[in-house]
Amino acid sequence: MSEKPEVSEKMQQLLDLAAEIDDLGRIGAVLGWDQQVNMPPDGAEERGMQMAALGKIIHEKFTSDEVGKLIADLEAEVGDLNAETDEARAVKVSKRAYEKQTKVPLPLLMEMIKITTMAHQAWVEAKSKSDFSIFQPHLAKIVDLTKQYADLFKPYDHVYDPLLDDYEPGMKTADVKKIFEALRPQQVELLQAIAEKEPPDNGFIKQYYKEERQEIIGRHVITRFGYDWQRGRLDLAAHPFTTGFGQGDIRITTRYLKDDAGSALFSTMHEAGHAMYEQGIPAKYRRYPLGSAASLAIHESQSRLWENLVGRSKEFWSFFYPSLQMLFPEYLADVSMMDFYRGINRVEPSLIRVEADEATYNMHIMLRLEIEIGLMEGTVEVKDLPDFWNSRMQEYLGVTPPDDAQGVLQDVHWSDGNIGYFSTYALGNLVSVQLWDKMLAENPNIPDEIAQGKFDSILGWMHEKVHQYGCKYEPQELMLKATGSKITPEPYIAYLKKKYSEIYDL
Amino acid sequence: MSEKPEVSEKMQQLLDLAAEIDDLGRIGAVLGWDQQVNMPPDGAEERGMQMAALGKIIHEKFTSDEVGKLIADLEAEVGDLNAETDEARAVKVSKRAYEKQTKVPLPLLMEMIKITTMAHQAWVEAKSKSDFSIFQPHLAKIVDLTKQYADLFKPYDHVYDPLLDDYEPGMKTADVKKIFEALRPQQVELLQAIAEKEPPDNGFIKQYYKEERQEIIGRHVITRFGYDWQRGRLDLAAHPFTTGFGQGDIRITTRYLKDDAGSALFSTMHEAGHAMYEQGIPAKYRRYPLGSAASLAIHESQSRLWENLVGRSKEFWSFFYPSLQMLFPEYLADVSMMDFYRGINRVEPSLIRVEADEATYNMHIMLRLEIEIGLMEGTVEVKDLPDFWNSRMQEYLGVTPPDDAQGVLQDVHWSDGNIGYFSTYALGNLVSVQLWDKMLAENPNIPDEIAQGKFDSILGWMHEKVHQYGCKYEPQELMLKATGSKITPEPYIAYLKKKYSEIYDL
Repeated sequence: MSEKPEVSEKMQQLLDLAAEIDDLGRIGAVLGWDQQVNMPPDGAEERGMQMAALGKIIHEKFTSDEVGKLIADLEAEVGDLNAETDEARAVKVSKRAYEKQTKVPLPLLMEMIKITTMAHQAWVEAKSKSDFSIFQPHLAKIVDLTKQYADLFKPYDHVYDPLLDDYEPGMKTADVKKIFEALRPQQVELLQAIAEKEPPDNGFIKQYYKEERQEIIGRHVITRFGYDWQRGRLDLAAHPFTTGFGQGDIRITTRYLKDDAGSALFSTMHEAGHAMYEQGIPAKYRRYPLGSAASLAIHESQSRLWENLVGRSKEFWSFFYPSLQMLFPEYLADVSMMDFYRGINRVEPSLIRVEADEATYNMHIMLRLEIEIGLMEGTVEVKDLPDFWNSRMQEYLGVTPPDDAQGVLQDVHWSDGNIGYFSTYALGNLVSVQLWDKMLAENPNIPDEIAQGKFDSILGWMHEKVHQYGCKYEPQELMLKATGSKITPEPYIAYLKKKYSEIYDL
Repeated sequence: MSEKPEVSEKMQQLLDLAAEIDDLGRIGAVLGWDQQVNMPPDGAEERGMQMAALGKIIHEKFTSDEVGKLIADLEAEVGDLNAETDEARAVKVSKRAYEKQTKVPLPLLMEMIKITTMAHQAWVEAKSKSDFSIFQPHLAKIVDLTKQYADLFKPYDHVYDPLLDDYEPGMKTADVKKIFEALRPQQVELLQAIAEKEPPDNGFIKQYYKEERQEIIGRHVITRFGYDWQRGRLDLAAHPFTTGFGQGDIRITTRYLKDDAGSALFSTMHEAGHAMYEQGIPAKYRRYPLGSAASLAIHESQSRLWENLVGRSKEFWSFFYPSLQMLFPEYLADVSMMDFYRGINRVEPSLIRVEADEATYNMHIMLRLEIEIGLMEGTVEVKDLPDFWNSRMQEYLGVTPPDDAQGVLQDVHWSDGNIGYFSTYALGNLVSVQLWDKMLAENPNIPDEIAQGKFDSILGWMHEKVHQYGCKYEPQELMLKATGSKITPEPYIAYLKKKYSEIYDL
């Protein structure tokens, strides 16, 4: 297609509306970024009102009868919405969004914004005091509203389906369960084998590394990856995240821990992976219905790929380790590259998801999925969550949180009303290895290139197979095109086994 | 009135609308702040579209026939809009805004946003290359659109009246001309007397002071003034400014120059003055039609008061100078407090408005007012501006800019479409001294308090006489209430003469 295709009058109406909705959504992203990066304490209440005002306008603009009529007319005009043209897919994506949003009454949306604004504050307090009871009534309301939300989408196969579908278009609860059921026993088996071995030392990284120098290596690495600073920036925030205010402005954040220098470096690579995906969506999709990522799992595949498959590989460190040694000689001068590599890949069942290693990470997700499905089915009650959490942590990982802050209160997602989100993290891990394997099959030189500090082939391949399509294809369709297979756990398990067999001499 | 007054149904409708408009306006402020403080280069184009989308929504929401009907009904309900109640004034302020905005057709507004977005970029380039011809066609379009805008408000006494009224409600071109005509000869006479004297040395401040230490003293001073950090923050930007995202979040910016340490310190006090005004608007006016400042001149009076009447006074430095000496001993150890005081008050006809001293500042404004009125009347043409500017600078201040960057291109205002704004700077100077004199008459101890580093009485008086009213009263009405007089140049002239007679031994 050309850069400026000629389109019908009705199509242009849809595109104009989509562009305006995109503008307003991006404005919301600016408000959210500022809230997490800059906002002084007393700014929260009015910011919440501003977010609500914006949410209301977006909802009203998009759910009017005129838009429904327009989309119906366009569907007739276009014919097959699964045709390969951008126009057909733009109508398909818009129709999907319209049908979802019109099901949600404005009062429920406003109630959700109001409840989550308060719940978020309550969660912050509950976490800082490690007291679940502060958060409990708020979470109960969120669960109640989320059930009401899911019921708007009846009939469904499973009450959790509508939630999952918001983050992972087309994915069903049954699909995810099946994937996880295949994954769990194999991952447990691997963990048991690892547990019998002596773990490599990682004391050299669990130290206070000067923040300014952590920033030097972080910026250096992602610059080489291909993160475009002309269209981005790196800031500090309590929780690392990526956000985009348009194709010309995709920002990331990080945080520097006092006792773990690995945290910021790997999370910076992770967020840069997200950001390079957004930066890779083509110019023709700017303010266009297809100009966003395919799904959260696809998004997470890009972040995990740069963080883990690249950033925790031997080849990566054979290039970057001398630079790291230069910056932190007090800890690393006497640590060999291979000892460093083994140390940063140490497997350790731990309490906190975001700091989990590759071998245990998915177990944290399975716990959360089980809880979310249980809450929605009514088989798990909010008041029982701390006990449920702690007993499952013991069962799956052999550790019990000493308090709720390090247990059920550790993640922000539920306080923001994001139920249905977590499984995309684990799916993203699986997708990352599926893409990686396919890429290596086509480009066997990539490990050598990594060892030379070259990343163009990787970014280029991801751009060609993933980024350039935006959300033109649903995630499973995209995976079929890119790899010949839907999302499947086998490549991930094979990757883990190979990697850890070598490190742990299994 | 109580915190939550009972109001009629129609009044509540107006207040709800005003609250939503306020939310949307504050969102625009967040976008603008981020653009100037954080935005990466390639973010500009989409940010412009987002600003336009927001501007369109605000305009549409506020100018509907329903709003007109509502305001008319409320006017009938309230009766006298000049009554002293908040309700009457809220209707008055809303009616004024509605009548102004409904006169402006949306296409003209959109055209202005589009033109100024491009003009701003052109101005940045023109300034950096010191080439007026790059900016000239854009400015010509802005002048043309501004004439179209002014003509929407016919009949008027003067074509410049509608522009001035946007920034200074109720003020007429004839009023400003009269004030400036009284001001000019006296200020010229003072400058001539000063020119005959030996200027005090200020070389110690025209130096590179370490930025981190400049920040220490800047934050220290405005904290003592009473700037509330719980509801604010200080960042870097190319041009210092203040902005508010609600009563809980009023931010300021500064910049550190390599060759003039006075710039950041005085501009930080200046911006803190603006910000403390916004922070002083009472909680009952949050998201209420009266919850903004009375006018730009009143706003500028607050900034200039803290910057000049406080920050350039002997008493201020008798308290803070030892701290400054501690931070910068390499320049100040051997400079006495009185030599420092005289140095920072050195009068020097110069090229750049924002760096002008108190005695020459208004001359810069008079030049700009003359140009703006000339452009609107058609007696000055855009293409002639560089020559016009340079000849007037020679006539008024005895200096000729060596290039356009230091001449006609120095200010951002016209590129943003803000014609009519400049005179409020000079009016703000006059207002600051009128308020100051009245405050001192009621609180003769204030100079002693300043010398002890105490500023509560000043902030408290300003709060009582100015801040607490928001925009309930128009500026001249507010000045009558606060000082017993409308805006008048005599106190300012008397202040300048007294101050400089002492410093220059006139």
